[in-house]
Amino acid sequence: MMTQVEHIGIAVKDLAVSNELFTKLLGVKPYKEEGVASEGVMTSFFQVGKTKIELLEGTSPESPITKFIEKKGEGIHHLAFEVENIYTEMERLKNEGFTLLNEVPKPGADNKLVCFLHPKGTNSVLVELCQNID
Amino acid sequence: MMTQVEHIGIAVKDLAVSNELFTKLLGVKPYKEEGVASEGVMTSFFQVGKTKIELLEGTSPESPITKFIEKKGEGIHHLAFEVENIYTEMERLKNEGFTLLNEVPKPGADNKLVCFLHPKGTNSVLVELCQNID
Repeated sequence: MMTQVEHIGIAVKDLAVSNELFTKLLGVKPYKEEGVASEGVMTSFFQVGKTKIELLEGTSPESPITKFIEKKGEGIHHLAFEVENIYTEMERLKNEGFTLLNEVPKPGADNKLVCFLHPKGTNSVLVELCQNID
Repeated sequence: MMTQVEHIGIAVKDLAVSNELFTKLLGVKPYKEEGVASEGVMTSFFQVGKTKIELLEGTSPESPITKFIEKKGEGIHHLAFEVENIYTEMERLKNEGFTLLNEVPKPGADNKLVCFLHPKGTNSVLVELCQNID
Protein backbone atom coordinates (compact mmCIF):
# COMPACT_ATOMS: atom_id res chain seq x y z
CA MET A 1 0.00 0.00 0.00
CA MET A 2 1.21 3.50 -0.84
CA THR A 3 0.79 5.61 2.27
CA GLN A 4 1.89 9.04 1.06
CA VAL A 5 3.89 11.05 -1.45
CA GLU A 6 7.23 10.79 0.31
CA HIS A 7 9.12 13.20 -1.94
CA ILE A 8 9.38 14.80 -5.36
CA GLY A 9 12.83 14.64 -6.93
CA ILE A 10 13.99 17.62 -9.01
CA ALA A 11 17.09 17.48 -11.24
CA VAL A 12 19.25 20.61 -10.98
CA LYS A 13 22.53 21.67 -12.53
CA ASP A 14 23.97 23.43 -9.51
CA LEU A 15 22.80 22.37 -6.07
CA ALA A 16 24.11 25.51 -4.31
CA VAL A 17 22.24 27.83 -6.71
CA SER A 18 19.05 25.75 -6.52
CA ASN A 19 19.20 25.47 -2.74
CA GLU A 20 19.05 29.25 -2.63
CA LEU A 21 16.20 29.33 -5.16
CA PHE A 22 14.08 26.74 -3.36
CA THR A 23 14.75 28.38 0.01
CA LYS A 24 13.15 31.51 -1.43
CA LEU A 25 10.34 29.57 -3.07
CA LEU A 26 9.42 27.37 -0.12
CA GLY A 27 10.30 29.77 2.66
CA VAL A 28 12.40 27.11 4.43
CA LYS A 29 16.04 26.03 4.19
CA PRO A 30 17.11 22.50 3.25
CA TYR A 31 17.28 20.40 6.40
CA LYS A 32 20.09 18.26 5.05
CA GLU A 33 22.45 17.53 2.17
CA GLU A 34 23.53 14.01 1.38
CA GLY A 35 25.58 12.30 -1.30
CA VAL A 36 24.58 8.94 -2.77
CA ALA A 37 27.83 7.76 -4.34
CA SER A 38 26.28 4.65 -5.93
CA GLU A 39 23.88 6.88 -7.91
CA GLY A 40 26.42 9.62 -8.64
CA VAL A 41 24.30 12.32 -7.01
CA MET A 42 24.44 15.01 -4.36
CA THR A 43 21.06 15.76 -2.87
CA SER A 44 19.36 18.27 -0.58
CA PHE A 45 16.01 17.95 1.18
CA PHE A 46 13.32 20.49 2.02
CA GLN A 47 10.33 19.63 4.20
CA VAL A 48 6.89 20.91 3.13
CA GLY A 49 4.17 19.49 5.35
CA LYS A 50 4.46 15.69 5.18
CA THR A 51 6.33 15.69 1.89
CA LYS A 52 9.94 16.41 0.97
CA ILE A 53 11.37 18.18 -2.04
CA GLU A 54 14.62 16.48 -3.03
CA LEU A 55 17.02 18.41 -5.26
CA LEU A 56 19.53 16.23 -7.14
CA GLU A 57 22.75 17.28 -8.83
CA GLY A 58 24.74 14.74 -10.83
CA THR A 59 28.33 14.35 -9.62
CA SER A 60 29.68 12.49 -12.65
CA PRO A 61 28.99 12.37 -16.41
CA GLU A 62 27.51 8.85 -15.94
CA SER A 63 25.07 9.94 -13.26
CA PRO A 64 21.41 9.36 -14.24
CA ILE A 65 20.79 12.99 -13.22
CA THR A 66 23.54 14.34 -15.48
CA LYS A 67 22.12 12.31 -18.37
CA PHE A 68 18.56 13.40 -17.60
CA ILE A 69 19.56 17.09 -17.69
CA GLU A 70 21.52 16.62 -20.93
CA LYS A 71 18.44 15.12 -22.54
CA LYS A 72 15.56 17.06 -21.01
CA GLY A 73 17.03 19.94 -19.04
CA GLU A 74 16.37 20.70 -15.40
CA GLY A 75 13.00 19.83 -13.91
CA ILE A 76 10.98 17.26 -12.03
CA HIS A 77 12.80 13.93 -12.22
CA HIS A 78 10.79 11.46 -10.15
CA LEU A 79 7.86 10.97 -7.83
CA ALA A 80 8.38 8.87 -4.71
CA PHE A 81 5.72 7.08 -2.72
CA GLU A 82 6.21 5.75 0.77
CA VAL A 83 5.15 2.14 1.16
CA GLU A 84 4.67 0.07 4.29
CA ASN A 85 6.44 -2.97 2.92
CA ILE A 86 8.53 -2.52 -0.21
CA TYR A 87 8.81 -6.28 -0.91
CA THR A 88 5.03 -6.77 -0.85
CA GLU A 89 4.47 -3.67 -2.96
CA MET A 90 7.08 -4.65 -5.55
CA GLU A 91 5.43 -8.05 -5.86
CA ARG A 92 1.98 -6.50 -6.19
CA LEU A 93 3.11 -4.05 -8.90
CA LYS A 94 4.97 -6.74 -10.83
CA ASN A 95 1.79 -8.81 -10.85
CA GLU A 96 -0.13 -5.74 -12.11
CA GLY A 97 2.23 -5.61 -15.11
CA PHE A 98 4.62 -2.84 -14.07
CA THR A 99 8.34 -3.21 -14.82
CA LEU A 100 10.69 -2.85 -11.86
CA LEU A 101 14.03 -1.20 -12.65
CA ASN A 102 15.63 -3.07 -9.76
CA GLU A 103 14.44 -6.52 -8.77
CA VAL A 104 15.84 -6.16 -5.25
CA PRO A 105 15.32 -3.03 -3.09
CA LYS A 106 18.44 -0.88 -3.01
CA PRO A 107 19.69 1.73 -0.52
CA GLY A 108 18.63 5.28 -1.40
CA ALA A 109 19.14 8.71 0.15
CA ASP A 110 17.55 9.60 3.49
CA ASN A 111 17.86 6.14 5.05
CA LYS A 112 15.52 4.31 2.70
CA LEU A 113 15.16 1.14 0.72
CA VAL A 114 14.02 2.06 -2.76
CA CYS A 115 12.79 0.60 -6.03
CA PHE A 116 12.08 2.41 -9.31
CA LEU A 117 9.40 1.52 -11.86
CA HIS A 118 10.06 1.82 -15.58
CA PRO A 119 8.48 5.08 -16.81
CA LYS A 120 7.30 3.43 -20.04
CA GLY A 121 4.59 1.72 -17.99
CA THR A 122 3.61 4.75 -15.92
CA ASN A 123 2.75 7.56 -18.40
CA SER A 124 6.43 8.55 -18.50
CA VAL A 125 6.51 9.27 -14.78
CA LEU A 126 9.58 7.82 -13.06
CA VAL A 127 8.02 6.34 -9.91
CA GLU A 128 10.05 5.43 -6.84
CA LEU A 129 8.83 3.28 -3.99
CA CYS A 130 10.55 3.83 -0.69
CA GLN A 131 10.43 2.34 2.74
CA ASN A 132 12.14 3.71 5.82
CA ILE A 133 14.92 1.59 7.26
CA ASP A 134 14.35 1.50 11.01
CA MET B 1 3.55 30.06 3.78
CA MET B 2 3.42 26.77 1.88
CA THR B 3 1.73 24.23 4.11
CA GLN B 4 1.93 21.07 2.02
CA VAL B 5 2.28 19.53 -1.42
CA GLU B 6 -1.36 19.73 -2.39
CA HIS B 7 -1.09 17.76 -5.63
CA ILE B 8 1.13 16.65 -8.47
CA GLY B 9 -0.32 17.22 -11.94
CA ILE B 10 0.40 14.62 -14.62
CA ALA B 11 -0.36 15.24 -18.32
CA VAL B 12 -1.93 12.22 -20.03
CA LYS B 13 -3.21 11.54 -23.54
CA ASP B 14 -6.23 9.47 -22.59
CA LEU B 15 -7.79 9.98 -19.17
CA ALA B 16 -9.75 6.72 -19.21
CA VAL B 17 -6.64 4.65 -19.99
CA SER B 18 -4.55 6.50 -17.40
CA ASN B 19 -7.25 6.26 -14.74
CA GLU B 20 -7.01 2.51 -15.07
CA LEU B 21 -3.20 2.61 -14.97
CA PHE B 22 -3.02 4.82 -11.87
CA THR B 23 -5.70 2.79 -10.13
CA LYS B 24 -3.40 -0.22 -10.51
CA LEU B 25 -0.33 1.78 -9.51
CA LEU B 26 -1.78 3.50 -6.46
CA GLY B 27 -4.20 0.78 -5.40
CA VAL B 28 -7.07 3.30 -5.19
CA LYS B 29 -9.62 4.61 -7.67
CA PRO B 30 -9.96 8.28 -8.60
CA TYR B 31 -12.35 9.94 -6.16
CA LYS B 32 -13.60 12.38 -8.76
CA GLU B 33 -13.41 13.63 -12.32
CA GLU B 34 -13.83 17.27 -13.15
CA GLY B 35 -13.60 19.45 -16.25
CA VAL B 36 -12.05 22.92 -16.16
CA ALA B 37 -13.41 24.47 -19.36
CA SER B 38 -11.36 27.68 -19.01
CA GLU B 39 -8.15 25.63 -19.12
CA GLY B 40 -9.37 23.15 -21.73
CA VAL B 41 -8.79 20.14 -19.49
CA MET B 42 -10.54 17.14 -18.05
CA THR B 43 -9.05 15.99 -14.77
CA SER B 44 -9.24 13.12 -12.32
CA PHE B 45 -8.01 13.00 -8.73
CA PHE B 46 -6.47 10.23 -6.63
CA GLN B 47 -5.80 10.63 -2.91
CA VAL B 48 -2.51 9.31 -1.52
CA GLY B 49 -2.09 10.27 2.13
CA LYS B 50 -2.41 14.06 2.34
CA THR B 51 -1.53 14.62 -1.31
CA LYS B 52 -3.48 14.24 -4.54
CA ILE B 53 -2.40 12.98 -7.91
CA GLU B 54 -4.20 14.96 -10.61
CA LEU B 55 -4.33 13.49 -14.11
CA LEU B 56 -4.99 16.03 -16.87
CA GLU B 57 -6.13 15.40 -20.41
CA GLY B 58 -6.38 18.30 -22.86
CA THR B 59 -9.84 18.70 -24.39
CA SER B 60 -8.85 21.03 -27.24
CA PRO B 61 -5.81 21.63 -29.46
CA GLU B 62 -5.23 24.97 -27.65
CA SER B 63 -5.21 23.40 -24.20
CA PRO B 64 -1.90 23.90 -22.34
CA ILE B 65 -1.95 20.15 -21.66
CA THR B 66 -2.34 19.25 -25.35
CA LYS B 67 0.55 21.58 -26.18
CA PHE B 68 2.69 20.21 -23.35
CA ILE B 69 2.20 16.64 -24.60
CA GLU B 70 2.96 17.63 -28.21
CA LYS B 71 6.25 19.16 -27.06
CA LYS B 72 7.41 16.89 -24.26
CA GLY B 73 5.14 13.86 -24.25
CA GLU B 74 3.19 12.58 -21.27
CA GLY B 75 4.57 13.04 -17.79
CA ILE B 76 4.63 15.23 -14.71
CA HIS B 77 3.26 18.63 -15.63
CA HIS B 78 3.19 20.69 -12.43
CA LEU B 79 3.72 20.70 -8.71
CA ALA B 80 1.11 22.38 -6.54
CA PHE B 81 1.59 23.74 -3.04
CA GLU B 82 -1.21 24.59 -0.68
CA VAL B 83 -0.90 28.05 0.80
CA GLU B 84 -2.78 29.64 3.68
CA ASN B 85 -3.31 32.94 1.90
CA ILE B 86 -2.68 33.03 -1.82
CA TYR B 87 -2.61 36.85 -2.00
CA THR B 88 0.09 37.12 0.67
CA GLU B 89 2.11 34.32 -0.89
CA MET B 90 1.89 35.78 -4.41
CA GLU B 91 3.13 39.10 -3.03
CA ARG B 92 5.97 37.42 -1.12
CA LEU B 93 7.12 35.43 -4.18
CA LYS B 94 6.94 38.45 -6.47
CA ASN B 95 9.16 40.32 -4.04
CA GLU B 96 11.59 37.37 -4.07
CA GLY B 97 11.90 37.78 -7.86
CA PHE B 98 9.60 35.02 -9.10
CA THR B 99 7.37 35.71 -12.12
CA LEU B 100 3.66 35.07 -11.64
CA LEU B 101 1.84 33.72 -14.70
CA ASN B 102 -1.39 35.27 -13.47
CA GLU B 103 -1.40 38.46 -11.46
CA VAL B 104 -4.78 37.70 -9.94
CA PRO B 105 -5.71 34.29 -8.46
CA LYS B 106 -7.95 32.32 -10.81
CA PRO B 107 -10.40 29.47 -10.22
CA GLY B 108 -8.84 26.01 -10.62
CA ALA B 109 -10.08 22.45 -10.32
CA ASP B 110 -11.14 21.00 -6.97
CA ASN B 111 -12.61 24.23 -5.58
CA LYS B 112 -9.40 26.24 -5.42
CA LEU B 113 -7.97 29.65 -6.17
CA VAL B 114 -4.70 29.14 -8.03
CA CYS B 115 -1.67 30.97 -9.34
CA PHE B 116 1.18 29.60 -11.46
CA LEU B 117 4.83 30.67 -11.36
CA HIS B 118 6.90 30.93 -14.53
CA PRO B 119 9.06 27.78 -14.80
CA LYS B 120 12.03 29.78 -16.07
CA GLY B 121 12.52 31.04 -12.53
CA THR B 122 12.00 27.71 -10.78
CA ASN B 123 14.46 25.23 -12.35
CA SER B 124 11.89 24.48 -15.07
CA VAL B 125 9.33 23.27 -12.55
CA LEU B 126 5.84 24.63 -13.20
CA VAL B 127 4.76 25.58 -9.68
CA GLU B 128 1.15 26.16 -8.73
CA LEU B 129 -0.02 27.84 -5.55
CA CYS B 130 -3.48 26.93 -4.41
CA GLN B 131 -5.82 27.93 -1.66
CA ASN B 132 -9.08 26.24 -0.77
CA ILE B 133 -12.21 28.28 -1.35
CA ASP B 134 -14.33 27.84 1.75
